[in-house]
Amino acid sequence: MIHRILILAAHGSRAEQANQEVVSLAARLALRLESAFQGVRPAFLEIAAPSIPQALDAAVSDGATDIVVLPYFLAGGRHVTSDIPRLVAAKRREHAGVQIRLAPYLGTAPELEAVLAGLAGAA
Amino acid sequence: MIHRILILAAHGSRAEQANQEVVSLAARLALRLESAFQGVRPAFLEIAAPSIPQALDAAVSDGATDIVVLPYFLAGGRHVTSDIPRLVAAKRREHAGVQIRLAPYLGTAPELEAVLAGLAGAA
Repeated sequence: MIHRILILAAHGSRAEQANQEVVSLAARLALRLESAFQGVRPAFLEIAAPSIPQALDAAVSDGATDIVVLPYFLAGGRHVTSDIPRLVAAKRREHAGVQIRLAPYLGTAPELEAVLAGLAGAA
Repeated sequence: MIHRILILAAHGSRAEQANQEVVSLAARLALRLESAFQGVRPAFLEIAAPSIPQALDAAVSDGATDIVVLPYFLAGGRHVTSDIPRLVAAKRREHAGVQIRLAPYLGTAPELEAVLAGLAGAA
């Protein structure tokens, strides 16, 4: 039974390969997090589908009562500080019985430093 | 003496706070990587300064002979597959005695899965 869903919210690209990377990442995260979430689904702010509102509606319609939206963004620009919170707030009002939470965006993770250090060494 | 420089190449945002995040991250990386690089410098593909070519020129002018460009991008879209490699290739031709290497972009790091899992739990 679906209860908790994680939505990996990416920007969306005109390069289909870039969108497919997000879809693949969501699939790998679903395996890693299967004890905490009954699904990890990709969603896109622009260009690609499903949109973030579409993904939220689909999760609710599949029975989710606790949804976490995780912005797959590096920069705390307008998309992260304004656009995504606004979309989430609208869906919270629409689906009053469902908890919809917004996770910190990827760029805030202190572990990124170590990841970048590894990539610099791989050059 | 400056020999190796790491350039953290981000997209650039109209939100100055987002660009400042990249500047701060480069400063933290400089400390972490000081045994490998004599400097970690931010650069931006669009909107903000310095641009990637400007940062490459400055590093060469400061004496760097081995420069690593690390794309701080999640998606393998046009910016990563075409724009940044083209800028790097042009500067390689211009600075023939300098090694300019392109690191894998951040989105390719397998550790991102664990970072995202942590953020999902923090929601």
